[in-house]
Amino acid sequence: MIPSDLSGALDREQANAELFELLRIPSVSADPTRAADMARTAEFLRAKLGKLGFAARVEATAGHPVVYAERLQAPGRPTVLIYGHYDVQPEAPLEEWTTPPFEPTVRDGRIYARGSTDDKGQAYAHVKGAELLLSRGELPVNVKFLLEGEEEVGSPNLDTYLRENAAELAADVIVISDGSRFAPDVPTITYGVRGLSYVELHVQGANRDLHSGSYGGAAPNPINALCEIIARLKDDQGRVTIPGFYDGIEPLTDEEREMWAGLPHSDEAFAASIGVSALPGEAGYTTLERIWGRPTLDVNGIWGGYQGEGSKTVIAAKAGAKVSMRLVPGQDPARITRLIQEYVPQIAPAGVTVEVLDHHGGQPVKLSTDSPYIRAADRALERVYGKPAVFARTGGSIPIVAAFTEILKAPVLFVDFGLNEDAPHSPNESFAVQDYHNGILTSAYLLEELGK
Amino acid sequence: MIPSDLSGALDREQANAELFELLRIPSVSADPTRAADMARTAEFLRAKLGKLGFAARVEATAGHPVVYAERLQAPGRPTVLIYGHYDVQPEAPLEEWTTPPFEPTVRDGRIYARGSTDDKGQAYAHVKGAELLLSRGELPVNVKFLLEGEEEVGSPNLDTYLRENAAELAADVIVISDGSRFAPDVPTITYGVRGLSYVELHVQGANRDLHSGSYGGAAPNPINALCEIIARLKDDQGRVTIPGFYDGIEPLTDEEREMWAGLPHSDEAFAASIGVSALPGEAGYTTLERIWGRPTLDVNGIWGGYQGEGSKTVIAAKAGAKVSMRLVPGQDPARITRLIQEYVPQIAPAGVTVEVLDHHGGQPVKLSTDSPYIRAADRALERVYGKPAVFARTGGSIPIVAAFTEILKAPVLFVDFGLNEDAPHSPNESFAVQDYHNGILTSAYLLEELGK
Repeated sequence: MIPSDLSGALDREQANAELFELLRIPSVSADPTRAADMARTAEFLRAKLGKLGFAARVEATAGHPVVYAERLQAPGRPTVLIYGHYDVQPEAPLEEWTTPPFEPTVRDGRIYARGSTDDKGQAYAHVKGAELLLSRGELPVNVKFLLEGEEEVGSPNLDTYLRENAAELAADVIVISDGSRFAPDVPTITYGVRGLSYVELHVQGANRDLHSGSYGGAAPNPINALCEIIARLKDDQGRVTIPGFYDGIEPLTDEEREMWAGLPHSDEAFAASIGVSALPGEAGYTTLERIWGRPTLDVNGIWGGYQGEGSKTVIAAKAGAKVSMRLVPGQDPARITRLIQEYVPQIAPAGVTVEVLDHHGGQPVKLSTDSPYIRAADRALERVYGKPAVFARTGGSIPIVAAFTEILKAPVLFVDFGLNEDAPHSPNESFAVQDYHNGILTSAYLLEELGK
Repeated sequence: MIPSDLSGALDREQANAELFELLRIPSVSADPTRAADMARTAEFLRAKLGKLGFAARVEATAGHPVVYAERLQAPGRPTVLIYGHYDVQPEAPLEEWTTPPFEPTVRDGRIYARGSTDDKGQAYAHVKGAELLLSRGELPVNVKFLLEGEEEVGSPNLDTYLRENAAELAADVIVISDGSRFAPDVPTITYGVRGLSYVELHVQGANRDLHSGSYGGAAPNPINALCEIIARLKDDQGRVTIPGFYDGIEPLTDEEREMWAGLPHSDEAFAASIGVSALPGEAGYTTLERIWGRPTLDVNGIWGGYQGEGSKTVIAAKAGAKVSMRLVPGQDPARITRLIQEYVPQIAPAGVTVEVLDHHGGQPVKLSTDSPYIRAADRALERVYGKPAVFARTGGSIPIVAAFTEILKAPVLFVDFGLNEDAPHSPNESFAVQDYHNGILTSAYLLEELGK
């Protein structure tokens, strides 16, 4: 079959209009008050895939529903399972958005909206990619779509869904577009993702808030204590101090370190892009190595005491923080969570009680760079960008990747359409219109290449 | 003149009803939306004092108004200035109140309401004390009331008011009831108060919130940085590490340490009363010494990143905390604030920028225990409680005490009616009905004793 040039056949206006409609639904999976919006989003996707001739349905789970669709018209050809998620991060802090998070707005060639790049825009690019190919005839491979609604809260119910439907979901390769390319105009294939262990620390001091004058000097202060605990979780070399944290980690290979050192990266430009004067982290590793190949610990949120106007002289009864650790191959999220749960009480100051709640985790994964699927993706990307792809890892985590490899026993192929500067998870998240359109073309060409 | 027994003459029902009316007005000085309530509270007090035959007026300031009233019918007799404040702390966290903070409710002999003990209840006891004496004839001394509305926000405008009205406010002694007695049934005269330096720390990392996967390991995390800064402000002996912090402090005298060691205090009972297992603090000092006679540093509030439901994998752009230091004689609030403003940038981790905002301060004060005024208070208390008073200090701060001593050049007499267990500044603040009534009697007897 002759590789088609589909660029001219893509109705970009129509593609944008459909994505905007999808982005207008506030599908925040973490917010219990938005359950109805979640259902509306799932139905939107089911209806669209149904129109394209897919056998599509919305599947209930113990949490938010899954959208499953399949079109199996290529007997003897490979089966491709395309995974994406239609849920998005909370929009807070709302006041920092230039335009409303759920009213998509194009500025300077970018679509600004929560979920524009993570992951509605990238997932929908595959839907449009399939539609584009169908406009030229039958799909050259069997295609299955699995679009979930709980990725941003750790996919608590997807494992069960995968186990119960393993036969139906069976595929030769799983394609995921839920991350960032290395740089603009740099087609990227990602062969590794970090894992995640996410916990919440609760520190309790007195049985009530206390007057800091009447008690200051004798009453334990849970906020000071929480800060001490957090400060003790890392040493002055940026290393995590939790005993056993680094045990079993696969060291970076010289080949990887050389490959990454050769990528177009500048610490100065990177620091400037986020407006900071330094890039602190684990000693002995480059910035890319620290983000892609080394584990980290970051506090994602903290609270306690008086946060309002003016001053309040109080010693709070309790304080809390959300802490996440990014993990690399060789680290097991469940084990890391257990280690921090054992360690925090040991480093807690006298007089307070601590609790470490387990939010969720995700397995770190690394893939072989010479599989035929990665080669097919390489060819597809070259057809869109006119240059070969670079091989990178990502610092992000896709918790269900491990489930795919374990339960469906299929290799996972990461072909990302987004960029870090899209600011996923932040106010003013965006997705370049050009990247969205390239994603649609890449998806269509990838199905062609996989069909060869 | 024969000491009168006024106990039988006190209409307790009426006294309670009036206080409840006062407590129903949400006079939160820190909340800009409650300016009208502040004005209503001031007018309530002016009207009451006017009815008692005081020349009473509400005086505008650059902030919330001051209520001033005087009745000068005792030529040749001493003049007593009674200070109190009608503003209250914010009620947050509202959900922890058993009954609404501004709907006074009596349970188990206690009046539950914001401001019940700090300071509406204690200040109004003096108003009722004067009324009680007037029911028997003219006041035996000249009495002036100064009731301000900005004590809980650091009395930013009172200094100016005192300077501009120094002549009118002139007094032989200033009486303040805005604190706690040592224990139930223990009449207490407080001869020292701690000072205060209150600052707000702001830490800025990147120019926007970042995805903790894509940036974790390289981007500075302002929450981790804030925790490190706060942890570094104290050493493992509970001492504040700010260079020069302890310079010039008047050491506790052996006499004071012995006197306090003799007071009925049990660390076990104290810890149990606030539900903690230990009382951490500066090494080498007893609990009472740490609260009354030594400086401290406490974080009163902290915030940053995601505080909502579930998990959000974000590296916040900024974080902040409110930090207060209680000071003792020999420490100057302005100097301490300058020291921490110089120190924090020095201990801030790389990659973040910090800002230390000055909220407000208060001078520490210590008084001589053998003045005739303290003796008069001792006699008045003995008439109410049937036992001599104990001499204590308080860990709290009354920022304007220094202004009184400096500007009005009059000694300040602390006769407190409340208790620590009243939980001022906390949810479910309360004031024992009995303590309120004893306060009224103490106030009346004190005026008699001062008139001798």
